[in-house]
Amino acid sequence: MATEQRTPPSARTTVKRRAQRGVYDASVVHAILDEALICHVAHVVDDSPVVLPTIHGRIDESLYLHGSAASRMLRTLAGGAECCATATVIDGLVLARSAFHHSMNYRSVVVFGTAALVDDDEEKVAAMRAMSERLVPGRWDDVRPPAPAELAQTKVLRMPLHEASAKVRTGPPIEDDEDMASPTWAGVLPLHVVAAEPVADPAGPAGARVPAYLTPRSAGAWAAR
Amino acid sequence: MATEQRTPPSARTTVKRRAQRGVYDASVVHAILDEALICHVAHVVDDSPVVLPTIHGRIDESLYLHGSAASRMLRTLAGGAECCATATVIDGLVLARSAFHHSMNYRSVVVFGTAALVDDDEEKVAAMRAMSERLVPGRWDDVRPPAPAELAQTKVLRMPLHEASAKVRTGPPIEDDEDMASPTWAGVLPLHVVAAEPVADPAGPAGARVPAYLTPRSAGAWAAR
Repeated sequence: MATEQRTPPSARTTVKRRAQRGVYDASVVHAILDEALICHVAHVVDDSPVVLPTIHGRIDESLYLHGSAASRMLRTLAGGAECCATATVIDGLVLARSAFHHSMNYRSVVVFGTAALVDDDEEKVAAMRAMSERLVPGRWDDVRPPAPAELAQTKVLRMPLHEASAKVRTGPPIEDDEDMASPTWAGVLPLHVVAAEPVADPAGPAGARVPAYLTPRSAGAWAAR
Repeated sequence: MATEQRTPPSARTTVKRRAQRGVYDASVVHAILDEALICHVAHVVDDSPVVLPTIHGRIDESLYLHGSAASRMLRTLAGGAECCATATVIDGLVLARSAFHHSMNYRSVVVFGTAALVDDDEEKVAAMRAMSERLVPGRWDDVRPPAPAELAQTKVLRMPLHEASAKVRTGPPIEDDEDMASPTWAGVLPLHVVAAEPVADPAGPAGARVPAYLTPRSAGAWAAR
C-alpha cells in the first residue's frame, strides 16, 4: 500500500492557498492522520455545514470513523452524503517581527469523499482496534473486546484516502526585508501534546499497577512528538 | 457580553448525541474558544462540505476569523454562506476496562451562522490583536503593527456567538457493572499542550533575549492547562 501520490488526485484536493505547502505523498498523509489525536468531520444538513470532532483510525488507504448507531452524522454519511474529514497537528507558534507575518507551524490533512458503512464484523473490530492502538498502543489486548451487542450498537464507516492532501508549514518566520533589522525576538515556540501522570479510576481496581504502555516513553501519538 | 445561555438558542444548536454533555453557558463557550489553539471551519462548495483549520479570536460575543483576501473560503463566507466553526480541546484519554467504553475527555464548541466582513480598520486590528494576545499574551505590543497595505491584504470576518453550544466530557470511564471486577487498570491519561524552549530565528536578531512572555509560566493557551 502507501502508494506515493506526487500530484493532486483531483481538483478539489489541490491545495489552493499557499500551494507550495501542499503535499500529496501518501506517507506524509498517513503520518499526519496517525499522529492527530482527533479529526473534524464535516457534512451538510439542510444546505448548511456541520463540523464535529471525532476519533479516527487508519488502515492502509482507509480512514475509519465510528460512533453510536444513533448518531445523525454517521447515519447521514452512511447514506452516501459527501464528507470532508480534516486532521491537524500543531507544531508551534511562528513569532515574527511584524504582526502580519505571524503564523503557525502545522501539518494538516484534508480528505474528501463519501464513506461506506462497514458491515463485516471482522473489519469493524479491526477498525476499532486501529483507533485504539493508534492512541494507546498495547491497550487493546489488555481490555475486554467488544461483545456482539456492543458491535451492533456501533457504526463504523470507511472513507478511502484517494482524495486526500496534506498541507505543511515548518521553519522560522518569513518576513519583509525592512523588518529584519528589528530588535524584536523572532523565532518559533514549539508546542507538543504530552501526557501527565495517569489518574486511576477511584472505582478501582484497587492497587492495580499503571501498565507499562502508559509510561511517557511509550509510542502513543501524544508522546511521539 | 457574556450573557448566560442556559437553554439552547436554536434547534441546530442543541447537542443531539449524549445530550447530558451539552452546555449552553456563554462563559463555558468563551473559555473553550479562548483555550483552543485553532478551530476548524466548514463551508459548502458545490454541495460538498469543506473543513479547514484556522486561527480564531474572540471579543465578547463575536468570533473572528482571518486570512488572505484571496482565500476562497473567506470570500465564500463573506458572501453570506452558511458556516460552522468548531473548536476542540482534548483533556485526556479515558481508558475503560472494556474496549467499548473507551472515550476522550474533551471540551468542544460548535458555532453555526453566517459571517460578516469587517470593513472598519479599527475593528480589524482589534480582531487581529485578540487572535495574537489569546495565543501569546504580550506579543502584540512587541512587534510592528499591521501597515495599511497589510490590512488591505487581510480579510477579517465576524461571526456572532448567538448559535453556539459546548459539549464537555470529564471524569473516569463509565462502564457496565459486570466489568467492574476486571483486574485491568482503568482511569484517565491527562493530555496537555506544552511549549518547549523557544527556537530563535537563525536570521537574528543575534543575542536577543527571549521575551518574558514566552516563559512557561506565562498565561498563553498552551500553558494555561
